[in-house]
Amino acid sequence: MTRYFSEDTSEQAVIARLENCDDPRFRTVMEGAIKHLHAFVKEVEPTLDEWMAAIEFLTKTGQICDDKRQEWILASDTLGVSMLVDAINHRKPHGATENTVLGPFHVAGAPELQMGDDICRDGIGEPCVVRGVVADEDGNPISGAELDVWQTNGEGFYDVQQPTEQPQMNLRGKFRTGSDGAFWFKTVKPVPYPVPTDGPVGQLLEAMGRHPYRPAHIHFIVSATGFEQVTTHVFVDGDPYLESDAVFGVKDSLVLPFEQDGDAWSVTFNIGLAKAA
Amino acid sequence: MTRYFSEDTSEQAVIARLENCDDPRFRTVMEGAIKHLHAFVKEVEPTLDEWMAAIEFLTKTGQICDDKRQEWILASDTLGVSMLVDAINHRKPHGATENTVLGPFHVAGAPELQMGDDICRDGIGEPCVVRGVVADEDGNPISGAELDVWQTNGEGFYDVQQPTEQPQMNLRGKFRTGSDGAFWFKTVKPVPYPVPTDGPVGQLLEAMGRHPYRPAHIHFIVSATGFEQVTTHVFVDGDPYLESDAVFGVKDSLVLPFEQDGDAWSVTFNIGLAKAA
Repeated sequence: MTRYFSEDTSEQAVIARLENCDDPRFRTVMEGAIKHLHAFVKEVEPTLDEWMAAIEFLTKTGQICDDKRQEWILASDTLGVSMLVDAINHRKPHGATENTVLGPFHVAGAPELQMGDDICRDGIGEPCVVRGVVADEDGNPISGAELDVWQTNGEGFYDVQQPTEQPQMNLRGKFRTGSDGAFWFKTVKPVPYPVPTDGPVGQLLEAMGRHPYRPAHIHFIVSATGFEQVTTHVFVDGDPYLESDAVFGVKDSLVLPFEQDGDAWSVTFNIGLAKAA
Repeated sequence: MTRYFSEDTSEQAVIARLENCDDPRFRTVMEGAIKHLHAFVKEVEPTLDEWMAAIEFLTKTGQICDDKRQEWILASDTLGVSMLVDAINHRKPHGATENTVLGPFHVAGAPELQMGDDICRDGIGEPCVVRGVVADEDGNPISGAELDVWQTNGEGFYDVQQPTEQPQMNLRGKFRTGSDGAFWFKTVKPVPYPVPTDGPVGQLLEAMGRHPYRPAHIHFIVSATGFEQVTTHVFVDGDPYLESDAVFGVKDSLVLPFEQDGDAWSVTFNIGLAKAA
C-alpha cells in the first residue's frame, strides 16, 4: 500500500487525517460524511463534467439564499433529509401527536387571540372551523397549553410571501387552553401550494421528474409546561398531493377529514403531548 | 407499511419519487446520492442544531464563491473527493504518467517559450532547471508534444493571487518538444503553500485538526496528437507536507529528487503519455 491517497483506499486516507481532531462528536460526524461521500462517488463514478455540474449546483444553492430565502433547507426538505432528521429527533410515545417539519414560514410573535377568533384577515378562501383538545398521553386535558398556528390564505400564499397584498399576521394566531384543554378557532380551508421553483432546487425537482406541490395543511406548534413541544401539521384528507408531498411531511395520523358543516368546513384535531423527559 | 415517509424506509420513499425521471443516468446518480445521504444521516443521527450547522456551512460555502474563488472545489479537494473523481477518470496504463488535480490556478494562454527559457519573471526564489523527455508507453520520444507549466513564486503565491505584485504570466509557459521528445526550462524551486483558510473550508480544516498546506510542486498539462492529455504535478522529494497534502494530490511516481547542480537546483521529470482510446 502506498503512503499516499489511492482510489482503493481513498476514504481511509481522508479519515486518517482526523487524528488531531479534538472534538469526538465532530470527528464521528466527519468520519461518517467522508465514508458515505466516497462510497457515493465510487458507486456512481461521476465524469469530470458531472462533478463540475454538482459543484455548480452546490454553489448556486448557497448563492440564492438570503435573509428571506433558505434554498439549502428546501434542498434538505425535498430530498427527505429534513423529515429524517425530524423523525430521528422526535421519536414519540404512543398517545403523543407526531411531529413534522417546521417549514420556512413560521413567524415569531403571532397575535394572542381568544377562542373562536378568526385568524383570516383578508377573507380569501372557504370558511373553516378548527377544534380539538390538548391532552397528555393518557387523555387527561392540559390546561394552559399554547397553540401557535399558521397557514396560507385561500390562494396558497403565506402572508410573508405577499407582504404588500396580505394584512400583516394574516392567518397566524396563538391560543391558550382552559381547564378543559379545548381549543377552537376560525380560519379558511387550506389549499395545496408549490414550494419555490425559481432556483436550483426547482431545477433539481424538474430534472427528477417531480412536481413541487405540498398538500393542503395547517401548521401547529403546541407547548405546555412539563410536556415536550410538538411541531406538526394537520392535513386535509383527500388532497391530491398527500402521497407525493414535495417535502415528505405527511404522516397517517396527521391526515384528518375536513367536513362541510353548514356554510363552513370543520375539522377536529385532538393533540397529545408527551411528558417532558 | 405506511403509504407515507417513515424513518425506517426514508430512502425508499424518496427514491420512489424518481419514477418519472426520464434521464436514466441522472436517475442513477440521484438514487446513489439519496441512498448514501440517508445512510449518513441514519448513522450519525444529527441533532437539530447539528443539522442547522450543516445547512449554514453549505450556504456559506456557496456564498463566498465568485469568479475568482471556488470554495466548493476547495471543499471537494480537501475531502479527497476531487482526487477520487480524478482517479476514477484517469486509470492509466503502465508507462503513462499519473494524473493529479488541476487546481484552481491554471490560466489559459500562457506564453509560448523556447527550450531553456526562464518562466520566472520576478527573480524571487532559488534558481532551478527542469528537464525531461516526453515519450509513449514504450519509451519512444514524442515529437511536437506541448507542455503547459505553472507554479507559485518563491514566496508561495501564484501570479493571479498577487495581480499587483507579480508580473503577468509570472511562472507560466508553454514548451513544444522536437524530434527527441526532450524539454528543459528554467524556473525557481517551488515551495509549500497553504490553501485559502479565510472561508468555511478553512474553518472546517481547523475543526478537523488539519493544516492547510500543500507540498511544493510544479504543475504540468502535457498533450500530443494521438495521445491522452495528462494533468499532473512534479513534487519535491523531502517536502514536509508530502504525506499530509491538504488536497491529497501526491502520488509516489510524481515525487522526484531536486538536486543541487552548481548554483541551481535540478530535477528530471520524464513524462509518459498513453495512446488515445
